[in-house]
Amino acid sequence: MKQEKKLRSLATLYRIDHGKSFRLKDFDPSDTAGLPKEVKQESDQLLQRSTQQLAELQDMLYAQNRWALLLIFQAMDAAGKDGTIKHVMSGVNPQGCQVFSFKTPSAEELDHDYLWRTSKCLPRRGTIGIFNRSYYEEVLVVRVHPELLEAEQIPATCLNKGIWKERFEDIAAFERYAAHNGTEIRKFFLNVSKEEQERRFLSRLDEPEKNWKFSAADVRERLFWDDYQKNYEDMIRHTSSKHAPWIVVPADNKWFARLVVSSVIVHALQEMKLTYPKVSPEKRRALAEARSELEGKATPKKP
Amino acid sequence: MKQEKKLRSLATLYRIDHGKSFRLKDFDPSDTAGLPKEVKQESDQLLQRSTQQLAELQDMLYAQNRWALLLIFQAMDAAGKDGTIKHVMSGVNPQGCQVFSFKTPSAEELDHDYLWRTSKCLPRRGTIGIFNRSYYEEVLVVRVHPELLEAEQIPATCLNKGIWKERFEDIAAFERYAAHNGTEIRKFFLNVSKEEQERRFLSRLDEPEKNWKFSAADVRERLFWDDYQKNYEDMIRHTSSKHAPWIVVPADNKWFARLVVSSVIVHALQEMKLTYPKVSPEKRRALAEARSELEGKATPKKP
Repeated sequence: MKQEKKLRSLATLYRIDHGKSFRLKDFDPSDTAGLPKEVKQESDQLLQRSTQQLAELQDMLYAQNRWALLLIFQAMDAAGKDGTIKHVMSGVNPQGCQVFSFKTPSAEELDHDYLWRTSKCLPRRGTIGIFNRSYYEEVLVVRVHPELLEAEQIPATCLNKGIWKERFEDIAAFERYAAHNGTEIRKFFLNVSKEEQERRFLSRLDEPEKNWKFSAADVRERLFWDDYQKNYEDMIRHTSSKHAPWIVVPADNKWFARLVVSSVIVHALQEMKLTYPKVSPEKRRALAEARSELEGKATPKKP
Repeated sequence: MKQEKKLRSLATLYRIDHGKSFRLKDFDPSDTAGLPKEVKQESDQLLQRSTQQLAELQDMLYAQNRWALLLIFQAMDAAGKDGTIKHVMSGVNPQGCQVFSFKTPSAEELDHDYLWRTSKCLPRRGTIGIFNRSYYEEVLVVRVHPELLEAEQIPATCLNKGIWKERFEDIAAFERYAAHNGTEIRKFFLNVSKEEQERRFLSRLDEPEKNWKFSAADVRERLFWDDYQKNYEDMIRHTSSKHAPWIVVPADNKWFARLVVSSVIVHALQEMKLTYPKVSPEKRRALAEARSELEGKATPKKP
């Protein structure tokens, strides 16, 4: 029970429901909520417990086939998006869970409105959908690099100073619509420090088995670090809500980031108050008949 | 010029930008805006002129590749949706125009949010998209037949008395988003009278080549006529806007409905102030070089 309590507290500690007074500098990327950074026995056990809960809840989510859960991951490079998805979600049944990565948009995607490519990938009822990057890139990288906005071929009269506020409003409206239809959204900003990012880039250079992850372009983006931080803050201020909160995950310690993400997902599923579908009296009778047939007490009826 | 003026007036006569005080009974299904119902020479010429304008504008829309136009058709059965689409759009280049019909949703579609199946089909930049029925069925047939809402498998806590207002707001927000991204929307309600619908159903029974169109289920829906009219009115009141207006097309005379629809489409494209892409000085030089090569005055350069 103590474990459960700790996990529940981690699920809400970094959650932003209302963004108005949010300031990114109030959140420490190296925070571990009092858990010891060195001896990780306690946190390992916590993650194990959380993963187990997650698997049980996902089974019910799938059986009930009413709700859907969409998890969105946004972060600077090397903040640990891929690793977090891998470690947190490895226990779930892949039949009810699908991951989509949104990289540089294709020519076909650029020819459509920016929600087009993600809307197609929204999770079915009963399943968990994961967006590794998402439509939030539209108020992050596109805001940092105006030439990307130009490439979207939007008519000149639609481009104005208010475009970012418009995008925040449109995204918030879309997420409200999703909630009305039974799709809950949890959005994770993996909050890594500039120093930790540097350490991780260097290890990609130093360790041969990590070389494939290294990209010089990622390092160049560090020049825009402050712009990105400002835009992340603005995004969280404008698009946090009760049904689609941002979670500002301290990400300098990978094990801690995973623990926070896992507990948030479990909590989101618990809030749905999932149940297995109720069996009607007719169905119950049919089950009893099936048992008799299987046990040889009755002859199967031809359909 | 007189023709152009008449067409422009037809383009705005039945257009609802603000729905607050809209009442369906103020709109006469048999109206023809003073055009003679018997001798149709004038209206035939008008439609011909409008079709020609439409083809020219579509060419520019496609070349410029910035705007998209989405046309939505909603109506009672036999109001003339298919015939209107066929006659009005037959002059356009199919490469830049795609029609999608939304009938009873599939199991896969029901497993998603209700905008999922239409969002995938939104028109690319430079093209015209046509929805023969659309997400508006969600506040029409689904509202008339509550068992269809039940089939959508929405979690019980999301179903409440305010659901239709929520849907109006969500749809309006979606259309606002579309406008922000360069997709203009025109929504046609083909307003047919109950008497004219009866005449058309009877002719489907009387004329062998129309028999295939007849469905007994369509006739049964006439029992819900008043419910439908109430819901159409409510829909138009709540989802009319400047960037996505409803057009309440008098549909008892097919030729007149087609004329109105055609002039609205032409007007929507004119409002975009389309131009062919400007040729830059470099491009102009490249064009001049290409001409020299073609005319044999210069040797083509190997790339």
